[in-house]
Amino acid sequence: MKIIIDAMSGDNAPLEIIKGAVLAAEKQDTDIILTGDRAKINSLCALNSIDLGTRVKVADADGIIDMHDDPMSILKSKKSSSMGIGLELLKNGEGDAFISAGNTGALVVGSTLILRRIKGIKAAAIGSVLPLTRPTMLIDSGANVVVTPETLVQFALMGSVYMKKLYGLESPAVALANNGAEDTKGTPLQIEAYKQLSAVEDLNFIGNIEGRDIPFGKCDVIVADGFTGNMILKLSEGFGLFMGKTLKDIFKKNIRTKLSALLVHGEIGGIKAQLDYKKYGGAPLLGVSAPVIKAHGSSNAEAINSAVAQAIGFAKTGIVGEITSLAAKLRESKAEK
Amino acid sequence: MKIIIDAMSGDNAPLEIIKGAVLAAEKQDTDIILTGDRAKINSLCALNSIDLGTRVKVADADGIIDMHDDPMSILKSKKSSSMGIGLELLKNGEGDAFISAGNTGALVVGSTLILRRIKGIKAAAIGSVLPLTRPTMLIDSGANVVVTPETLVQFALMGSVYMKKLYGLESPAVALANNGAEDTKGTPLQIEAYKQLSAVEDLNFIGNIEGRDIPFGKCDVIVADGFTGNMILKLSEGFGLFMGKTLKDIFKKNIRTKLSALLVHGEIGGIKAQLDYKKYGGAPLLGVSAPVIKAHGSSNAEAINSAVAQAIGFAKTGIVGEITSLAAKLRESKAEK
Repeated sequence: MKIIIDAMSGDNAPLEIIKGAVLAAEKQDTDIILTGDRAKINSLCALNSIDLGTRVKVADADGIIDMHDDPMSILKSKKSSSMGIGLELLKNGEGDAFISAGNTGALVVGSTLILRRIKGIKAAAIGSVLPLTRPTMLIDSGANVVVTPETLVQFALMGSVYMKKLYGLESPAVALANNGAEDTKGTPLQIEAYKQLSAVEDLNFIGNIEGRDIPFGKCDVIVADGFTGNMILKLSEGFGLFMGKTLKDIFKKNIRTKLSALLVHGEIGGIKAQLDYKKYGGAPLLGVSAPVIKAHGSSNAEAINSAVAQAIGFAKTGIVGEITSLAAKLRESKAEK
Repeated sequence: MKIIIDAMSGDNAPLEIIKGAVLAAEKQDTDIILTGDRAKINSLCALNSIDLGTRVKVADADGIIDMHDDPMSILKSKKSSSMGIGLELLKNGEGDAFISAGNTGALVVGSTLILRRIKGIKAAAIGSVLPLTRPTMLIDSGANVVVTPETLVQFALMGSVYMKKLYGLESPAVALANNGAEDTKGTPLQIEAYKQLSAVEDLNFIGNIEGRDIPFGKCDVIVADGFTGNMILKLSEGFGLFMGKTLKDIFKKNIRTKLSALLVHGEIGGIKAQLDYKKYGGAPLLGVSAPVIKAHGSSNAEAINSAVAQAIGFAKTGIVGEITSLAAKLRESKAEK
């Protein structure tokens, strides 16, 4: 396996990304290509006594797409940025997957237009795996704010393939994020999507899921438009932080509460680890012709290592191929009608 | 003050509603009319040794609108249900506010068509006050899944009036629920609403709020369409329950963790009380011609007592009058253009 990593993007780039690449090369037994400013990477390695070894190579790139850049810049002025070069290398088959902790919009646009969408797939979607009662994929978690019912069906199928292949589930339970259980609930988008989702063979559609039930692991895949998905994702993140802060405030209050904290230190650590995005790598971009992972913006070396493990699984299990077959099947069944 | 309460609706009706009415009559020093099956209420009172006293009266009603009933039934077959009679009494000036823990859809439809909307107001909205870092009104939290930017502006103004009058805030900070901070974020609905919200005088619009920031009390009013608002409300509720369950699981694990729990018992209780919907009464329905409160479906006596306190504040502070003036002002400024 050879994994391409955008060395320059993310809050802790490039140092933590470089460290993560070195860590992953060893731990995941893989080759890695770091895309970025070669001089800067080399001097940082020298300064921090980092040895890239034989398995981590650098592909020189010019500039960074930052959070404020227009996503379209990846096709124009920032074509040779660390993200642009990474996608070009992946497109040319010089690696098996690409990871970036950078500008999500640019990664979606770049992946869609440089790698291309899988034939028949209407939109590429970000599938975040939420570390809740059971790992639950939320798709789309932010790439497409306006979608059609047909697109939601494709998101459901892609999410289902991913959870099947990467989490070993036989028949992932898929639910539609909605404001009630009945099939009459939601905006016209959800009402029509419910109908279409119910009609798809090879999909274990279990109906709607309300916000209240989301944390409790009632399904394996939650389907949503990118606006709603983003709200669910960010609110989940926010409540995780809120929960952590609230506990910290309680336990730090006085000697008595500090003693209490000592007694449950291990258990609290366990929960923290469960909710820790760093262990979860990143969010796969599904629907494009090669594996792309959006790592969390605040990724450190450990998170990059997890993302590499995930990227290897993504590439190895043939998820892109499976989605390609499904999309062809959908096109055929549509042509027959 | 005279508060009308739907005695028959809600998970714990009618017994807990009756108990709540008696409690509130004394604690809030108010008259109360319970709408419902008089024979049933009387026999329950006898069975449970409840004395309604001189301040709680019963207005006889026939039947209940349950959770599975079509909301429109309140205008047709279920006109003389406990909810229908309650709204009729309020309309005829026989009380100052109405509280129901029943079918939200029916309450919205009934309030809109029996009480009527305030002139110029496009839609009645439910404004739930979330017990987060600071009390934050989420409007609309579920009444209207499809809205226009103009409607969102009205929700913002109504929520702002409510927080000003009832929470004594001078200039409530209003934010639009969105998937990013910039004014280009969101679906076309949010993009246009952002523009219109920025242009309204007398509104302290502070921009967009992302899901991640919602728990941390960055504003006093969150504006959303009812679909997104419902997702935020229910997810917040879900994460509150998730947090409680997670802590319980930790503390119940063994002797050591049980000891830890004893040490922070008071503090955990404080947080639980903060997050307890029962202390918050219910959600006001804003935009109709008289005060209506949607109490939580699982309301007990204590929650009903809180809802009565809230209903009194709602009626006493002239919120309906203030919204009526604002709506007239909006109409004038529109006519001038």
